[in-house]
Amino acid sequence: MKTYLAVDLGGTNVTLGLVTDQGRLLKKDRFPVQAERGIEPILADLIGRLQAIMNGLDSSERPAGLAVGAAGFIRPDKGLLVAAPNLPGWKEVPLARILGDVLGLEVRLGNDSDLYTLGEWLVGAGRGYRNLVGLTLGTGVGGGLVLNGSLWSGSFGTAAEIGHIVIEPDGRPCTCGSRGCLETLASATGMTRTARELMLQGRSCGFKGRESDLSAADLYHLACQGDEVALETFARAGWALGLALTGIFNLLGLEAAMIGGGAAKAFEFIYPKLWEEFSQRVFAVDPARVAIITAALGDDAPLLAAPALFRE
Amino acid sequence: MKTYLAVDLGGTNVTLGLVTDQGRLLKKDRFPVQAERGIEPILADLIGRLQAIMNGLDSSERPAGLAVGAAGFIRPDKGLLVAAPNLPGWKEVPLARILGDVLGLEVRLGNDSDLYTLGEWLVGAGRGYRNLVGLTLGTGVGGGLVLNGSLWSGSFGTAAEIGHIVIEPDGRPCTCGSRGCLETLASATGMTRTARELMLQGRSCGFKGRESDLSAADLYHLACQGDEVALETFARAGWALGLALTGIFNLLGLEAAMIGGGAAKAFEFIYPKLWEEFSQRVFAVDPARVAIITAALGDDAPLLAAPALFRE
Repeated sequence: MKTYLAVDLGGTNVTLGLVTDQGRLLKKDRFPVQAERGIEPILADLIGRLQAIMNGLDSSERPAGLAVGAAGFIRPDKGLLVAAPNLPGWKEVPLARILGDVLGLEVRLGNDSDLYTLGEWLVGAGRGYRNLVGLTLGTGVGGGLVLNGSLWSGSFGTAAEIGHIVIEPDGRPCTCGSRGCLETLASATGMTRTARELMLQGRSCGFKGRESDLSAADLYHLACQGDEVALETFARAGWALGLALTGIFNLLGLEAAMIGGGAAKAFEFIYPKLWEEFSQRVFAVDPARVAIITAALGDDAPLLAAPALFRE
Repeated sequence: MKTYLAVDLGGTNVTLGLVTDQGRLLKKDRFPVQAERGIEPILADLIGRLQAIMNGLDSSERPAGLAVGAAGFIRPDKGLLVAAPNLPGWKEVPLARILGDVLGLEVRLGNDSDLYTLGEWLVGAGRGYRNLVGLTLGTGVGGGLVLNGSLWSGSFGTAAEIGHIVIEPDGRPCTCGSRGCLETLASATGMTRTARELMLQGRSCGFKGRESDLSAADLYHLACQGDEVALETFARAGWALGLALTGIFNLLGLEAAMIGGGAAKAFEFIYPKLWEEFSQRVFAVDPARVAIITAALGDDAPLLAAPALFRE
């Protein structure tokens, strides 16, 4: 049985583990990122924990490689983390060489949203679909695309930036420099902004704290209690997601869309408007033949993609 | 040398020809479609002209097959033209069987915009790109997608409906049932509508006829003379195309977009605003590494795709 070490390097946490080529997670560990400490202490912590996993194995169980997913621009061909918006100072980091030299393993890199989608497609909610789009609703909106049973990374290794599909041409400014991107409406950040705007317009909302402290988790709890601002916020995110999926499915004729990430917890509140927009607008596919599903593996998903990175 | 018969079945004209597997067009013929005459006379005319081409060949030159492109919903696997919006009454027509029985040839079907893009990719402006999107600006906006050097047709055979990517969620109603689709702004029909609306708003325009008689060709000639309504109309189409390409490139990370179809004649007036929107907004690719090109083969393009249909 082959195994792989796997790392998911996020802006808030680093998750790591040991995965079999059959898609089982044998060990798992995680630690919080203190981004302001810079690169070295985080890498040292990560290397120590990876070595701890390896030291617990017999020599016959030596992992066949290390797969690293990171939120940011990756050059998989060069083993390079070009830039990570949530990890200031991480620029042009030769992650594959650094980790490979210390651990004596082959290292392959991927974008975290790509690996999230790939993991769900291999052993989670996306199993069995030949053509699938995955969306992660978190601080931003990430995406991954499986076409013909392979991860699609485009001509430059940087495809599936689904969060930056334009929904409202004159909408909110986005961190990417454009306006009205899906991410400005359907990320956790975008949703709390929507709710705050509704509250500033005088709409009554059950949130008792300061508007600036409102989180996506608060919105979820409020929606469960029937709060109108929270419900309208999720409906607006669903509207934006329905429009984005209309474009994606008109372009690619997929079988399924999978919604994951922390904010997908509110799927029950997001879905009705998403489906209304999508089913009324989509043209290239019969909506009755399309599945809109939620992710199943949580933050294990990117780790479970590790064997696939070594197959490609 | 293998040859193929090729047909492009449009709503206005039928074009046909004989194509070599090296991508040369040996013979070409065309006739106008009188859609109101129904299916039989058009098919009879088409069959007569195809037989005339075959009768002019030695028995050693017998074509290896017949490729048919049609504007509409195609089921290539069943050889079926499911529906053609511009050919009323053409519903569930088993084109492959009908033509194959009469001519004694294997027949393969494809969507006309797909074949247009494929032809340009094989022997025209799209040569050498591994990942390319093609757009045809005509009565509607059609599209084709080459991914990893193959035509992409999705899970249901109906992908690349690029004209129905939503640009303005609350925009003009579209024939597809949605609103604000690219087609409502960047097709010949959409552009003349934009110009008429500007004229109705009192904007001065050099067009001397009745507003309802204004054509896309008129707009092109007016734009050449510096007419402001015509220039603004093309700029608005360019704006919509730039937004659509932003989404497509953020999703797929392509190398090139190719603009064709009759209204692409006005590319010089459409391009500046297209490029402004696209280059300022796109995130997943470096716009400096992307080519926006115009089609080169005119209405020969779908015919020249014939050999590729028999390769897949």
